Amino acid sequence: MIIGFDADDTLWHNEDGFQATHRQFESLLSTWATPDEAGDHLFAVEARNMSRYGYGVKAFTLSMVEAAIDISDGEISTAELSDILELGRHLLDRPAELIDGVVQVLEALAGHTLMIITKGDLYHQLARIESSGLRDHFWRREVVAHKDPSTYRDLLAAHDVPVEDFVMVGNSLPSDVLPVLEIGARAVHVPYAITWAHEAHDDEHPAPTIESLGELPDLIGQWSTPG
Amino acid sequence: MIIGFDADDTLWHNEDGFQATHRQFESLLSTWATPDEAGDHLFAVEARNMSRYGYGVKAFTLSMVEAAIDISDGEISTAELSDILELGRHLLDRPAELIDGVVQVLEALAGHTLMIITKGDLYHQLARIESSGLRDHFWRREVVAHKDPSTYRDLLAAHDVPVEDFVMVGNSLPSDVLPVLEIGARAVHVPYAITWAHEAHDDEHPAPTIESLGELPDLIGQWSTPG
Repeated sequence: MIIGFDADDTLWHNEDGFQATHRQFESLLSTWATPDEAGDHLFAVEARNMSRYGYGVKAFTLSMVEAAIDISDGEISTAELSDILELGRHLLDRPAELIDGVVQVLEALAGHTLMIITKGDLYHQLARIESSGLRDHFWRREVVAHKDPSTYRDLLAAHDVPVEDFVMVGNSLPSDVLPVLEIGARAVHVPYAITWAHEAHDDEHPAPTIESLGELPDLIGQWSTPG
Repeated sequence: MIIGFDADDTLWHNEDGFQATHRQFESLLSTWATPDEAGDHLFAVEARNMSRYGYGVKAFTLSMVEAAIDISDGEISTAELSDILELGRHLLDRPAELIDGVVQVLEALAGHTLMIITKGDLYHQLARIESSGLRDHFWRREVVAHKDPSTYRDLLAAHDVPVEDFVMVGNSLPSDVLPVLEIGARAVHVPYAITWAHEAHDDEHPAPTIESLGELPDLIGQWSTPG
């Protein structure tokens, strides 16, 4: 089988770093707003910028600067804005910290063809793939702008992967599971401890959910046994 | 033949917009620095951030904010920093303004297989391809993080394109010409009126240079005539 893996919060930790940065942002703005108010405003600015900036740390950093100026009514100091730029650089420089057991799972699945299919900033995602040490487990590494049905359809066609041989594995229902089911392929949902607020989702779906990636090889084994 | 086209400053204007933004940045900083000083400092900040931020408008906007705080020794107002964020948004929102004659050239080459191979921010480049109206002329549209020999080698392999059937067309010697010659494929250099300072380059190279894209169909015609 050809198995696609999401990266952020599926192969390595990501959202925990963003959450820690949120706390530092709220603390920087505490003169002007409660943590909830600062967080809500940042969420609104991110949502407004999403179609223009896309996903990723650079987009998030630009939204933090914009929201900080808004929330403080222009009173925030340039030193504090420099601190916000530094928060962004810190997120970019953070090495990929692997989810427990990832290497063993990829080794157990080495008889299959593995791909990374991740969404976000091209430079940062490629840098993280390099820093993760996981690069050579994967036949292809694809960074996409959106994870919608047509993205998956085009990607499988471009790599000559038959839909019926493809399984996508990831933590996000709207990105890794629902669009893949929609094109007729299989998906496995592996929830992460924290869900990004912009991807909170409670749809019912027929894909199997596993509690940890360690359960994946058995599941794939059942699917790939003929008969 | 399979013909790869660079996009920025090959299919549509790009550097002219960055240059205009540079002038506005220098004007915003004129209390603290001459245009040359402001420009030089911004260049240095961009160069320092390049390996972390990569290319594109979001990276450029973050570097403008950082450089403006530096240059003004922290004295710049948050209103002026908001103006800098707006300069970046304006660049992102700018529709792709086509280079003269592009549509006719693509139509004349419709018997070949055409690809876009562009470097930069994934979201912004895909948005520009959509806004350009050129999308359907191209078999594949690839946004890459770097244009080095291994990127081209991997890309051609992934799409089953034989090196000897490939020609790359673009305005940048270090990105579109030299790495393509290095892997043994052909390249055509179409200089743009302005060269990005980070890509200024004066190497000798054996690829043909044409003054405008309008000369491309004849050149390709000579190459694709058997015998």
